[in-house]
Amino acid sequence: MQKHRLVRVLQGMDALGLEQILVSAPASVFYLTGAWVDPGERMFALHLHKSGEIRLFANRLFALRGNVDIPLTEFDDTEDPIPLLAESVRPGRLGIDKTWPSQFTIRLMEYRSDVCPVLGSKPVDDARMCKDEAELSLLRESSRKNDEAIVRAMAAIRPGVRESDVARAYQQATRDLGAEDASFPPLICFGANCAEPHHATDDTPLRSGDSVILDVGLLWRHYCSDMTRTVFFGNPTDEQKRVYDLVLKANCAGRAAARPGVPMREIDFAARKVIEDAGYGQYFLHRTGHGVGLEVHEPPNASATDETIARPGMVFSVEPGVYLPGQFGVRVEDLVAITEDGAETLNELPREMRVIAP
Amino acid sequence: MQKHRLVRVLQGMDALGLEQILVSAPASVFYLTGAWVDPGERMFALHLHKSGEIRLFANRLFALRGNVDIPLTEFDDTEDPIPLLAESVRPGRLGIDKTWPSQFTIRLMEYRSDVCPVLGSKPVDDARMCKDEAELSLLRESSRKNDEAIVRAMAAIRPGVRESDVARAYQQATRDLGAEDASFPPLICFGANCAEPHHATDDTPLRSGDSVILDVGLLWRHYCSDMTRTVFFGNPTDEQKRVYDLVLKANCAGRAAARPGVPMREIDFAARKVIEDAGYGQYFLHRTGHGVGLEVHEPPNASATDETIARPGMVFSVEPGVYLPGQFGVRVEDLVAITEDGAETLNELPREMRVIAP
Repeated sequence: MQKHRLVRVLQGMDALGLEQILVSAPASVFYLTGAWVDPGERMFALHLHKSGEIRLFANRLFALRGNVDIPLTEFDDTEDPIPLLAESVRPGRLGIDKTWPSQFTIRLMEYRSDVCPVLGSKPVDDARMCKDEAELSLLRESSRKNDEAIVRAMAAIRPGVRESDVARAYQQATRDLGAEDASFPPLICFGANCAEPHHATDDTPLRSGDSVILDVGLLWRHYCSDMTRTVFFGNPTDEQKRVYDLVLKANCAGRAAARPGVPMREIDFAARKVIEDAGYGQYFLHRTGHGVGLEVHEPPNASATDETIARPGMVFSVEPGVYLPGQFGVRVEDLVAITEDGAETLNELPREMRVIAP
Repeated sequence: MQKHRLVRVLQGMDALGLEQILVSAPASVFYLTGAWVDPGERMFALHLHKSGEIRLFANRLFALRGNVDIPLTEFDDTEDPIPLLAESVRPGRLGIDKTWPSQFTIRLMEYRSDVCPVLGSKPVDDARMCKDEAELSLLRESSRKNDEAIVRAMAAIRPGVRESDVARAYQQATRDLGAEDASFPPLICFGANCAEPHHATDDTPLRSGDSVILDVGLLWRHYCSDMTRTVFFGNPTDEQKRVYDLVLKANCAGRAAARPGVPMREIDFAARKVIEDAGYGQYFLHRTGHGVGLEVHEPPNASATDETIARPGMVFSVEPGVYLPGQFGVRVEDLVAITEDGAETLNELPREMRVIAP
């Protein structure tokens, strides 16, 4: 049990008037207990009451007995865990973790009509949003390792290579560097595929004149990194150069806007404005960034709709992009950590335009 | 749109008195529309009304426009999709897909207090449970490829090898065979690690006398395979031989019990009884099996609590195991498909005890 983290969660519950919550996201349970469980379709939840009373409900298969220092209710695949949980919760509002599968919420309500489910992730999400020193240290290490891993993946860029080959080179690098895994499937895009922000890496071969997007991250002691670099295979056209400069400027503007007290939407705005002012606004198709920590997508977002105020310890991506359908795309992404008076960029890899000779 | 599948889902809704459902599981939406989307934390749902009226709600990033032949409401990261969805649903009971994140259910209810959420996966799950011919054909191919891939992984078992090396050999084999990926991270266990049914593959080195569990599956055109073999590295002890024979008998008994009209729990019982009668019941820690199809864990389960009656087209694992803490473990798993008069085993790899010389 991470006591100082539990205290922050209890303070968050108090501020929201939430007397009890169910924490179910693997990363959130890990954050509080140090035990990482991927429950799959099985029921898994930590019930926390404002009194500090806490109990973890877990399938016996997860072998938590002896590995967590909090009260534990175990069950096996032949038992229905919902009645066990229903006995433990109190009447009234019950905060539910945002990703808890709806089946558990709905079935729990069938057993306990005196319980009212409300959104309940905020206390843990808020605590997790502001990383403590131990977490920042791991996030820095994760991004440093990612700097190294992407260089090794770039070394695989040569005539005839396929997107999937570069993705494999990246995955091999994560293992060689001692990371647990990639934090998400490497997104490697060549040429027109770069214009689809969520293109799935495939066997497209590299051709001269292609832009190459490498959007990659790794897991380091459970903490994620996430970075994008765009390089050119062969001399870029004038438009490719213009777009690259623009996206790099937007990346710098977004990172420069990141400091304590600034609403997250203004960081989005700062990056977006650079691209809009140059007339490419319609080709920047997504938010500027997302939080990163134990999960590769977590609060806060650098987006027009996120009202969160940046505070020290928040870590998120700044990743503007311009996507010209059928032609090419450019994205430049770094992670930043809000400090007491500004922001620290966690990735150190240079951002200058890089051309790889065919 | 797979019309014959939609018809089966509508019949299922009618049988349950469900006038409308939200389908959100990527595999379920793929099953109906042919479009596979991994929405991550983004809202994604298909609203289906008993009239056959259907509408897919998806983020613009998923690029579905032009790729699905049903009405589509798109939104981007700057928009809140819940009000759009709230406009579309009708008053009364609304079936919710079991894995839909609770945040969407709870927020939708805030907009529509005239809507009552109930469990709503059953119509699609039931349709998906009984595979059609096209699906059975892909599941057979997936298991045949898995037969080949596990042989290649076994070839990596030699002195000094680590669990992670064998896992990598398996993953390489899936790629070489043209599969999309593994259907789950390969579970490779050596020696005492075999006694933890959900041990995560690590760098444990192989030692003489170890049992070796290979629990592996791959994705073939979106369809999963899943198989376990246990081999011995060096001559097994008498107890290892006895336990292996027992588990193999339980596997055969489970598969022999699989035929149309039998409750799934009886298939669990048939396998479990063999192990219990031999006095090892307390060491068989999990259900006998789980459904497999577009997902590697889906209904029905071969478990004491599953009342489903086996019907033609159902595909599930039969995977009894015995786990002796600190010593070794044995599991033998195959996939079976219920036929008109019995069951077809999809894996063809031999099950006889295999000893690999150190």
